[in-house]
Amino acid sequence: MLLKMKIDWLLQILIGCGSIKVSEILKYCNSRCLAVVPQGGNTGLVGGSVPVFDEVIINIGSMNNIISLDKVSGILVCEAGCILENLDSFLLNEGFIMPLDLGAKGSCQIGGNVSTNAGGLRYVRYGSLHGSILGLEVVQANGTVLDMLGTIRKDSTGYDLKQLFIGSEGSLGIITKVSILTPPRLSSTNLAFLACKDFFSCQKLLSESKRKLGEVLSAFEFLDNQSMDMVLTYLDGVRNPLPPSVHNFYVLIETTGSNETHDKEKLEAFLLHSMESGLISDGVVAQDINQASSFWRIREGITEALMKAGAVYKYDLSLPVEKMYNLVEKMRIRLGQRAKVLGYGHLGDANLHLNISTPEYDDTVLAQIEPFVYEWTSSHRGSISAEHGLGLMKANKIHYSKSPETVELMISIKKLLDPNRILNPYKVLPHSLVQE
Amino acid sequence: MLLKMKIDWLLQILIGCGSIKVSEILKYCNSRCLAVVPQGGNTGLVGGSVPVFDEVIINIGSMNNIISLDKVSGILVCEAGCILENLDSFLLNEGFIMPLDLGAKGSCQIGGNVSTNAGGLRYVRYGSLHGSILGLEVVQANGTVLDMLGTIRKDSTGYDLKQLFIGSEGSLGIITKVSILTPPRLSSTNLAFLACKDFFSCQKLLSESKRKLGEVLSAFEFLDNQSMDMVLTYLDGVRNPLPPSVHNFYVLIETTGSNETHDKEKLEAFLLHSMESGLISDGVVAQDINQASSFWRIREGITEALMKAGAVYKYDLSLPVEKMYNLVEKMRIRLGQRAKVLGYGHLGDANLHLNISTPEYDDTVLAQIEPFVYEWTSSHRGSISAEHGLGLMKANKIHYSKSPETVELMISIKKLLDPNRILNPYKVLPHSLVQE
Repeated sequence: MLLKMKIDWLLQILIGCGSIKVSEILKYCNSRCLAVVPQGGNTGLVGGSVPVFDEVIINIGSMNNIISLDKVSGILVCEAGCILENLDSFLLNEGFIMPLDLGAKGSCQIGGNVSTNAGGLRYVRYGSLHGSILGLEVVQANGTVLDMLGTIRKDSTGYDLKQLFIGSEGSLGIITKVSILTPPRLSSTNLAFLACKDFFSCQKLLSESKRKLGEVLSAFEFLDNQSMDMVLTYLDGVRNPLPPSVHNFYVLIETTGSNETHDKEKLEAFLLHSMESGLISDGVVAQDINQASSFWRIREGITEALMKAGAVYKYDLSLPVEKMYNLVEKMRIRLGQRAKVLGYGHLGDANLHLNISTPEYDDTVLAQIEPFVYEWTSSHRGSISAEHGLGLMKANKIHYSKSPETVELMISIKKLLDPNRILNPYKVLPHSLVQE
Repeated sequence: MLLKMKIDWLLQILIGCGSIKVSEILKYCNSRCLAVVPQGGNTGLVGGSVPVFDEVIINIGSMNNIISLDKVSGILVCEAGCILENLDSFLLNEGFIMPLDLGAKGSCQIGGNVSTNAGGLRYVRYGSLHGSILGLEVVQANGTVLDMLGTIRKDSTGYDLKQLFIGSEGSLGIITKVSILTPPRLSSTNLAFLACKDFFSCQKLLSESKRKLGEVLSAFEFLDNQSMDMVLTYLDGVRNPLPPSVHNFYVLIETTGSNETHDKEKLEAFLLHSMESGLISDGVVAQDINQASSFWRIREGITEALMKAGAVYKYDLSLPVEKMYNLVEKMRIRLGQRAKVLGYGHLGDANLHLNISTPEYDDTVLAQIEPFVYEWTSSHRGSISAEHGLGLMKANKIHYSKSPETVELMISIKKLLDPNRILNPYKVLPHSLVQE
């Protein structure tokens, strides 16, 4: 339905080309109370970039110039419409990498990444965009261009307002330029694909890897046996790299460092120790880049496999690690034979993707899942959206993760920055409260 | 003068003990339009925690309990009055470290660190508090307690409001609790004390170290020959670890990693290569913890030496690395024999401490320094306060680093969160604009 709406309103797409043009469009729309939806690569999972009624779409995809790269400090400045993968390719030649990497990198745009506070695979190593983003240019609802495009690493002059726009999903302003700290590209990468007998072993392996792999750990992902089955069943050419056996969990550990010999020694010593202590029951280290790609294909292919399998209910949760998998097990008990319940995600960041697959959408199944999944997450002080944002689909659920006083302050800030409520309406915050 | 004021108003110090008490105090003060100054360790360098007229001081030092530590993820939750060094000592036993370290660690408090967005020595490795802080409890001007005390690493539910309070120097709310991601403590630390013939070599050394030391680099500090002279002249028992010679610059490079052998190999190969290529003219690696302390004593003792030498004009600037030292040289030309001009700081973060020493305070010297130092920094899009904040002393200078539209939005936010302007008046923002 969302897709259909999008097509209906194609005629209303305005191509933002330069912050001046975006400013003019917003000034016009604001003066006439016309609602707008900022849109980047349109790869979000919660409907944040999709119009709901008659909003004008402002697509920033043509603002895709790289402005500068400081080769001493690794500070990249670019327009918001640059595609993530293109930025990574550009940096590759210059000896740097983007501090984030996600499955949608081929089409998602950096402006959208920042607006949604995107996480992804490198988060465990390089952390949040709140730390990496050094500056933004943002056009406010009334057309004012806010130049906060700092190109230095440290700045403590006044409030760090750019932070407000990181993760606010285009509801406070439209990001037109981005300045971001990019880490140096290190020469050595290793990837291990491991099996664990239970979730407690996965957790313990994580703790140990933080200490023993320490500074070279660059990804720590997990999937359960159900996720592996889904991929093997629905994706052509994918196979389990470990000999057939009943493994309950799989873990991918990636290291990235500056010295191939040192990194291999660390990883091998760590794996040997983990094998001896029984934390891992089997494992294999990728021997070349093709094998590494085939390991990643399993982890990154889960979404695609789920789409082929039928209907899917997707939840992107952050929970204390030791509680995380309890939710998957509880959900399996609640749903019984009616659904396949998959648990996978960024274990290194305590980020669980709980995905529930059914042959087709079924309201009785949904009633078993929601609001239970949110209530359970809330009762453990977790986040109901770790890295996907709230968008349209979860805006009304914000109270599960944020206190009433905090939501109230968000609404005050929304009203301050966008008094006519033209920016991405119905998203992020409960619509009824914003309109009050 | 500031110190005298502080003593005059000692009677007005209220001891905040728990967020409920802070809430009651603020509710009372807000209803009567009584201004307050939140105060932590009172170690700031720009007068941010010092009352100006008759403000009530709210001291949070007695709120110093550690609340929890998640030993899998390293997430520490504590009250805002905990002293930084005490937190680091606590974590030491648990296998973690604080992601920040500063000279004032023995008395500064974590609430003050967060309020001022403190930087320090570990910044080059662990980055900004905007990335490390996972949650805050904040009491608003009207007494409302904002529970934003997330204890999870990822959360994209609504606006990340806690970010507003990081670096706002107590002018938007009083931080009462902090949740922070602490990195694992790694077993191996090495420290090299090196000499470079010119600033260009220091820069080149930095670029190379990011690539060759990569993941183990944990500090990259520099001082010029004038800073070394100051320390050797005024601090007892400090000596130059390198044989007497004319070196223009000194660099401290620290590595921290999980494997002693690997780290030493990396550092030695790097130093050998740098020596051969002429980037460093001499150098020594600390052989034990005492020698390492004596190296750090030189870098960290500069402030103390300056205080003994007489009057000092201190500037904490962030600039593009390749331009950074030009300012020091220009300042030497402007001031000639009337002052000693020192350049040192966190080169790895492009953060220059420009300190100017004179026998006593002298308005004609000051007139040669300011506004030139701010204008020059501004013209290179630098920050006039990299890590010290604006406080009282630099509030009116915010325009050198922030655009008028950005400052205007800061003022709107100040008025929204603190309509009676009771929180830390005269600080951060130009007072005249806030009162309009």
